[in-house]
Amino acid sequence: MRMKVAVLGAGGLGRAACRIIGMKRELRLTAICDSKGLLVDPGGLDCEALACGSGDVVLSYPRRAHETAGPHADGGVATATALLARHSEDPLGELLEHGGDVDAWLVTLPNMPNEFIPGVARRFVQATDGAVFVDVLKRTAAVEQMFALEDAAKASRSVVLTGCGATPGLLTAAAVLAAQSFIEVERVDIWWGVGVANWEAYKATIREDIAHVPGYSVERAKAMSEAEVEAFLEKTGGLLELHHMEHADDVLLQRVGVVQSPEQVEVGGVMDTRHAKKPVSTTMTLTGITFEGKRATHRFLLGDETTMAANVIGPALGYLKRGVWLREHGIYGVFGSTEFLPMVVR
Amino acid sequence: MRMKVAVLGAGGLGRAACRIIGMKRELRLTAICDSKGLLVDPGGLDCEALACGSGDVVLSYPRRAHETAGPHADGGVATATALLARHSEDPLGELLEHGGDVDAWLVTLPNMPNEFIPGVARRFVQATDGAVFVDVLKRTAAVEQMFALEDAAKASRSVVLTGCGATPGLLTAAAVLAAQSFIEVERVDIWWGVGVANWEAYKATIREDIAHVPGYSVERAKAMSEAEVEAFLEKTGGLLELHHMEHADDVLLQRVGVVQSPEQVEVGGVMDTRHAKKPVSTTMTLTGITFEGKRATHRFLLGDETTMAANVIGPALGYLKRGVWLREHGIYGVFGSTEFLPMVVR
Repeated sequence: MRMKVAVLGAGGLGRAACRIIGMKRELRLTAICDSKGLLVDPGGLDCEALACGSGDVVLSYPRRAHETAGPHADGGVATATALLARHSEDPLGELLEHGGDVDAWLVTLPNMPNEFIPGVARRFVQATDGAVFVDVLKRTAAVEQMFALEDAAKASRSVVLTGCGATPGLLTAAAVLAAQSFIEVERVDIWWGVGVANWEAYKATIREDIAHVPGYSVERAKAMSEAEVEAFLEKTGGLLELHHMEHADDVLLQRVGVVQSPEQVEVGGVMDTRHAKKPVSTTMTLTGITFEGKRATHRFLLGDETTMAANVIGPALGYLKRGVWLREHGIYGVFGSTEFLPMVVR
Repeated sequence: MRMKVAVLGAGGLGRAACRIIGMKRELRLTAICDSKGLLVDPGGLDCEALACGSGDVVLSYPRRAHETAGPHADGGVATATALLARHSEDPLGELLEHGGDVDAWLVTLPNMPNEFIPGVARRFVQATDGAVFVDVLKRTAAVEQMFALEDAAKASRSVVLTGCGATPGLLTAAAVLAAQSFIEVERVDIWWGVGVANWEAYKATIREDIAHVPGYSVERAKAMSEAEVEAFLEKTGGLLELHHMEHADDVLLQRVGVVQSPEQVEVGGVMDTRHAKKPVSTTMTLTGITFEGKRATHRFLLGDETTMAANVIGPALGYLKRGVWLREHGIYGVFGSTEFLPMVVR
């Protein structure tokens, strides 16, 4: 039995999720939405078509599917094969209503404002009869709001896994492993490099990063016009170098006892919005004291050829499978990416 | 409530385990045995004294404890504070009988012959009313025998966690994390360095490594006299370089789907039996293909200042806490170190 997965958000990361889901024999993509519409097909959507599509998720879905469907009174399509393709003012609400029997929801929506995805998660957890909900949130404030859903998640027998991308996510879990050799962890330093040849494919991600620049905020970055973003990037030759980022690696590591205080965790990095090549290598460096009193450093390095999409969506799907496992074992609540090893999705 | 831990084996790794357990406020060492005797104290043994002791675990335990106890008819001591210090022909059997209410058993005994620790695990799983049993086994054949205990473990509501040291263990779990970025993993290469200034503290570990040298076997290494081991090491200036080791990283990674075949995993390393400095750095290198078709390599590096003891016992105690968690959640059976993230023990 394949796990039935719905993807919320059809931007760069959402489309990458479609492509990877299409390559996994354990997964079936049964629903996706963007801000304007939704597609649902319990038999499985065409992942590659969605990955290659651009713009509107409903309009860009292959005509073939639309044709077998025929038009519907409300301007969408519904068919004998149960394809639903519909523009909507409330795609998330319609997905909840018409999305069918979904095993897990993967959220790749931009989180602007900070409370947006926690709000979506609350809505899904409360509306479904036990959901597995996985996010790739980055900001500390947002992840803290996710943990506030603990009672709601338990009440509905849901599993919420938060901060399950690259950082927090893959690199933060690596810090939990690295910490095993030490009696006391002094510092965790995460330094990431991301290169995207075409920034328009990752508009939201780049805005989220601009929000970390001193003097900017999530609200200010969200309000910028595309021309303003372009002008901003023009000043630095397309590079964004960020330090002391408000990333949830800190609370996720504190929560499991790797560090005593969020100040022991530092996240920063460099994004090149004009070249696919990473401007710096991505590393997680943990320094601690061993039981013999020796100071030492463990390090986890990501290959430069791995993209942000591979390092965010791969782990997110591994945590998604873990979430389904947790739910099958009757373990409900909100968990961070530092609490479980993601599973390998075949 | 501290977790009550018993350590089976009081060699180099067993004594390191005592020291680390003594530094953790979540753990209490309530029992230990070696091949000749056992110590039990539900109130908590003196970890530092055990870590500093040498030779016989019963005789080397502080006289203070013996004195408050007074002699017993059978040559051991038993007291009002419930200390039991006794030489025994069957320390494991006596530990089962007199070890008290233990939350988890950590096995640091040498595994020679290959079926020794799986046999001990079977005995403990069958004799107790639900045990958590953690080993730091290395050989593929031994770990496979541990997995054969699945039915027995489930029947007694036990959790057995196998291969939970450094390799397999810490580095193998790091490979599960690294695999998340890839659609297909091509190779996992583990290359370890160990330096021990005084090989006599790690006699069993070194014999286990000699058993990997072409022309040797577990039986032949076990049968070597100490003089023969010394003569063997003399020929290489105290260095042992090993390739194509029969380490269970292969089956543990295949089991969770990181690799399709054990041949994709290679374990080797260099042990210096005369210097504490590591002769080479310990690394886990995973090469795979991303969903975009790019080949890349993730790497996990251990700091040279971390000893074998830190990298074996630290993770083993993290898995031990995970084992207690699994049992509390009603999840029983035999699991590998690649299935769960070890927890941080405070």
